[in-house]
Amino acid sequence: MPPSVSVFGAAGFTGALTARLLHRHPGFDLSVVTARSDMGRRLDDLYPYHRVPLMLEELDLDRHASVDAAVVAYPHGAAAPLVAELRERGVRVVDLSADFRLRDPTVYELWYREHPTPQMLDQAVYGLPERYREEIREADLVANPGCYPAAALLALAPLAREGLIDDVVIDAKSGVSGAGRAPSEKTHFVTADENVNAYGVPRHRHTPEIEQELEALGADVRVTFTPHLVPLDQGELVSCYVTVTNGATDALDVEQLYADSYDAEPFVELAPTPPGVRDVRETNICRISVHRDPRTDRAIVFAAIDNLWKGAASQAVQNLNLMFGRPEGEGIA
Amino acid sequence: MPPSVSVFGAAGFTGALTARLLHRHPGFDLSVVTARSDMGRRLDDLYPYHRVPLMLEELDLDRHASVDAAVVAYPHGAAAPLVAELRERGVRVVDLSADFRLRDPTVYELWYREHPTPQMLDQAVYGLPERYREEIREADLVANPGCYPAAALLALAPLAREGLIDDVVIDAKSGVSGAGRAPSEKTHFVTADENVNAYGVPRHRHTPEIEQELEALGADVRVTFTPHLVPLDQGELVSCYVTVTNGATDALDVEQLYADSYDAEPFVELAPTPPGVRDVRETNICRISVHRDPRTDRAIVFAAIDNLWKGAASQAVQNLNLMFGRPEGEGIA
Amino acid sequence: MPPSVSVFGAAGFTGALTARLLHRHPGFDLSVVTARSDMGRRLDDLYPYHRVPLMLEELDLDRHASVDAAVVAYPHGAAAPLVAELRERGVRVVDLSADFRLRDPTVYELWYREHPTPQMLDQAVYGLPERYREEIREADLVANPGCYPAAALLALAPLAREGLIDDVVIDAKSGVSGAGRAPSEKTHFVTADENVNAYGVPRHRHTPEIEQELEALGADVRVTFTPHLVPLDQGELVSCYVTVTNGATDALDVEQLYADSYDAEPFVELAPTPPGVRDVRETNICRISVHRDPRTDRAIVFAAIDNLWKGAASQAVQNLNLMFGRPEGEGIA
Amino acid sequence: MPPSVSVFGAAGFTGALTARLLHRHPGFDLSVVTARSDMGRRLDDLYPYHRVPLMLEELDLDRHASVDAAVVAYPHGAAAPLVAELRERGVRVVDLSADFRLRDPTVYELWYREHPTPQMLDQAVYGLPERYREEIREADLVANPGCYPAAALLALAPLAREGLIDDVVIDAKSGVSGAGRAPSEKTHFVTADENVNAYGVPRHRHTPEIEQELEALGADVRVTFTPHLVPLDQGELVSCYVTVTNGATDALDVEQLYADSYDAEPFVELAPTPPGVRDVRETNICRISVHRDPRTDRAIVFAAIDNLWKGAASQAVQNLNLMFGRPEGEGIA
Repeated sequence: MPPSVSVFGAAGFTGALTARLLHRHPGFDLSVVTARSDMGRRLDDLYPYHRVPLMLEELDLDRHASVDAAVVAYPHGAAAPLVAELRERGVRVVDLSADFRLRDPTVYELWYREHPTPQMLDQAVYGLPERYREEIREADLVANPGCYPAAALLALAPLAREGLIDDVVIDAKSGVSGAGRAPSEKTHFVTADENVNAYGVPRHRHTPEIEQELEALGADVRVTFTPHLVPLDQGELVSCYVTVTNGATDALDVEQLYADSYDAEPFVELAPTPPGVRDVRETNICRISVHRDPRTDRAIVFAAIDNLWKGAASQAVQNLNLMFGRPEGEGIA
Repeated sequence: MPPSVSVFGAAGFTGALTARLLHRHPGFDLSVVTARSDMGRRLDDLYPYHRVPLMLEELDLDRHASVDAAVVAYPHGAAAPLVAELRERGVRVVDLSADFRLRDPTVYELWYREHPTPQMLDQAVYGLPERYREEIREADLVANPGCYPAAALLALAPLAREGLIDDVVIDAKSGVSGAGRAPSEKTHFVTADENVNAYGVPRHRHTPEIEQELEALGADVRVTFTPHLVPLDQGELVSCYVTVTNGATDALDVEQLYADSYDAEPFVELAPTPPGVRDVRETNICRISVHRDPRTDRAIVFAAIDNLWKGAASQAVQNLNLMFGRPEGEGIA
Repeated sequence: MPPSVSVFGAAGFTGALTARLLHRHPGFDLSVVTARSDMGRRLDDLYPYHRVPLMLEELDLDRHASVDAAVVAYPHGAAAPLVAELRERGVRVVDLSADFRLRDPTVYELWYREHPTPQMLDQAVYGLPERYREEIREADLVANPGCYPAAALLALAPLAREGLIDDVVIDAKSGVSGAGRAPSEKTHFVTADENVNAYGVPRHRHTPEIEQELEALGADVRVTFTPHLVPLDQGELVSCYVTVTNGATDALDVEQLYADSYDAEPFVELAPTPPGVRDVRETNICRISVHRDPRTDRAIVFAAIDNLWKGAASQAVQNLNLMFGRPEGEGIA
Repeated sequence: MPPSVSVFGAAGFTGALTARLLHRHPGFDLSVVTARSDMGRRLDDLYPYHRVPLMLEELDLDRHASVDAAVVAYPHGAAAPLVAELRERGVRVVDLSADFRLRDPTVYELWYREHPTPQMLDQAVYGLPERYREEIREADLVANPGCYPAAALLALAPLAREGLIDDVVIDAKSGVSGAGRAPSEKTHFVTADENVNAYGVPRHRHTPEIEQELEALGADVRVTFTPHLVPLDQGELVSCYVTVTNGATDALDVEQLYADSYDAEPFVELAPTPPGVRDVRETNICRISVHRDPRTDRAIVFAAIDNLWKGAASQAVQNLNLMFGRPEGEGIA
């Protein structure tokens, strides 16, 4: 019998998509979906295109936590206490929030607020399989990366690992689904349509997550990270402008470096020309191109993902696959 | 000194646009903008592109009603009492709501609810200048048409006036601004983008307004009217499928009929091919094409307007121009 | 060994998508893709998101026709000669063009031009599985329906079969992919964006196809059919306004009629509210809602499909599945 | 009698818009519009929304050059010879191409090709009024800036003038109209919709133009400039990441610097939050916000324009206004 799994917080975009992927997944048994709003509505009423014939239930841990695994799609801050409960009951968890991504609680406090369960931070594995594949297999708590960090880290890891990043500007563009399902002035069609604008300037919360993981790779650098909203539903592009460490650049063949880094990765795709987000829509794929600008000696790296898929839901399933010994691409390829 | 005018309800899309048009209008003095939400915010903060440097104020009739004219952009039901107050104080009013469009209070009650001020209905003139130009000049209370009726009536009037409409199906397509500024699941970018769907089936509230005015033109017909939401911000197309009255059709030259009807109209434009809503974006123009289908003997009429302009705000200004003896196209052409 | 299949004309939108579906299909072996333009380019260069690692080849029947099955995605008129060649060589064919949809060559000539191979018309089965499932299983030549007829016929079949259609107006809305891959003024982003307009007025070529199949179901009616272009990439909605045959209407429970008609159909989905094209994006599903308007006594039926999927490519694969005894939904669900 | 003006190359997006602005302009008499394609078509057939009732004529210098002024909207390389002819006949010219923007013919040759009329380069004034207002008044040949340089230079000028730019990355996002009217794979709706991607990497031709003008302001810097295509029709955002010159930063009040620089500029608007391109749609306005990132010590500047207006056509009219002593904002505000 396949492992049973609950999705907590399935009324939002990423939770609902996770539910869809698990509902069709041959290796898991999606037993319940809960929500903090829209309880009693069917998921296929809320999201007809996901075709998940389940009712959104109000959280009842005694009934809903008797599963092998859980995906938690709660907002930052609200996730940690639920994750703590689930872990106590022995449930293996993939958490989509930011609550377990930062290893240092003081950094979390600086960018979010006081951490509800700081003692659990060192139990979590950062859920970027291309980086922590082996750790994820053994993990009981996986912190799914933020959508921007997922793309940015895949874009920058080969350079970071070689110690080649002296400075980096990351200019990101995201579709409106990245702003979540809550209706607001920002997500109103008439605001977002025919528009582009930056937000979260100059301190978007994904910045420390990118810096933490770049540092772990060997690049101790302050990142300038600026996201923009563009008029499309799902898809995300990060454009990374890297000042390459002095002296290293002349002989550097960045295309070869990226080929060596990613040839064996099933969900990273290298392209000779700048990727479009349309190329990766509704896939778990990160499509990357890398370029040298001989005039400025910079390396320019573009990475495109679907923010709801590789940036959240399908990445969560990729992590679950690893945790439960399933083929890594099962249910998401 | 030009007449002073207030816009009541300027936080919404149509009220805000009316404020913009009046702010730049050489013939009126926009003295105040009020709102029922966002009081204290500047209009050019809420809508930077309108560039109206006024603060949204909370309604204070004693201060705000000492004007020559008012445009009321309140929701249905809420408008009538304010309009009644304004009329008592001698203010000439253009009302953007449905409250004074229907002449028969029992019809209003059937489609909306009990009418707050039924005794005022016969004071109102229906604000379609191409139909009631002379009456509007003399009116103290003008009921600005609904966006769909405005387009549908301009599309159908020439046939209706000739007694040629036996039956009609009106299939309308509107941009999302037609759903108003309130953020909701329906107006969320991710709902509306890459989508088309009908709504208000089978009883949209603009139906009796269309029927009332068609009847006044001579066409006593039950209208099938179905609006659809399409993924664009502003613009509206009505496609009218007319079963022409028996016997009248062989000799009928519809193109000539429309040319005769509209040649002198400054804001109706005839086109040989189906109009696109892009053709009339941000204008007070209704662009119309008429076609005969020899196979089915139907007449097919398309009319495109900008739902926020000719469908609401610029039409209100056109009415104000008539009421105050200004050139009809001043400030909107 | 699974049957081998070629896709002829794989550079266009529908051919390329068919290639993708067959490339991943467990029951077929996609051996070759040909094109009349872009020969020598890889399909995953032209359409990265389809991820089909095959080169587009120039047609060489001796090499490319030694397959069990073929999908032909040629323009109208160009398809028939190729299909004739393929049939002579014993290849079972699904043809995406209009060349074998109309049974009467004089009707074809009236709406298209002289038919290249009129003698083959009676060999073709109209490839709407919900209507001709058993005939398709035995067919060697299947004429895949046009995208508009596919949706319209699924919308209207239950009423037609009961003899309830006295008259019908079909107002259709399609995404821009329906206009094909050739760049033109019409398909330019700046033309289509923020726009809606009718085209093919009043004689769109899909009209006789709809009429032929409605008549075969028992509804001998002249159809008023008008398509519109809306600013989205893929998706199609047909809004059908049916004048119900006199006298039949009072007792008529249309919702029950549709439930009875479609309960067993795997790819027809009934909805209580008007379907959106987003609900069926990238699926083989036709989502339908039916409504009665008590005021006009009309039945109003909406049907949403993805024009590239159920309107073309996935329907072709559904047909291939039937022809070769595979599960009907294999590779498309 | 107002000065007469011709628009040469009015079939393209920027030429057609220039024609519209001049057609309605009280201070100029638009006498002729020519084109290199679509000759004989009326401009209001090609662009109904511009409503310019003129026929596109084939170039006939003897007839068309007897004007006071000309706007040339030809492609790079084709513009120079026509401009030379016009200047010989004493016509004052605003040229929308790149042909007279670069002062050094060897730089032009490096990024474009051999310059057709290098001897004329020093006669041209770079048409950015906020920078060269007085020179433009006297000029007979004005080189209208590229759309990206226009926005980037307005964004960076205050910092450049103070010698504060040590390094800069410019990440730009443009609507599809920026790619021109020619239908292509790139401008096809289905390519651009739901997509974002970089292009012209790493050597877009607007780079030397930005560098030339930054240097003239005092910033001798190699610019990293990367444009992206976003799914909207018109609008452009440049996001500028400036490494501020060492030592200057602590005391630097960038907001004050920008206020001082632009307070008197009628078409530069400062905003406290990042501007959206929707804020400036169909205006001659450049909307700018400037931010300091205390973590990285960078200055981040955003500038939004309408690429067809301030990025081309309305800027051309602004220049004509200056050249002919008209109010600077006439016909464009």
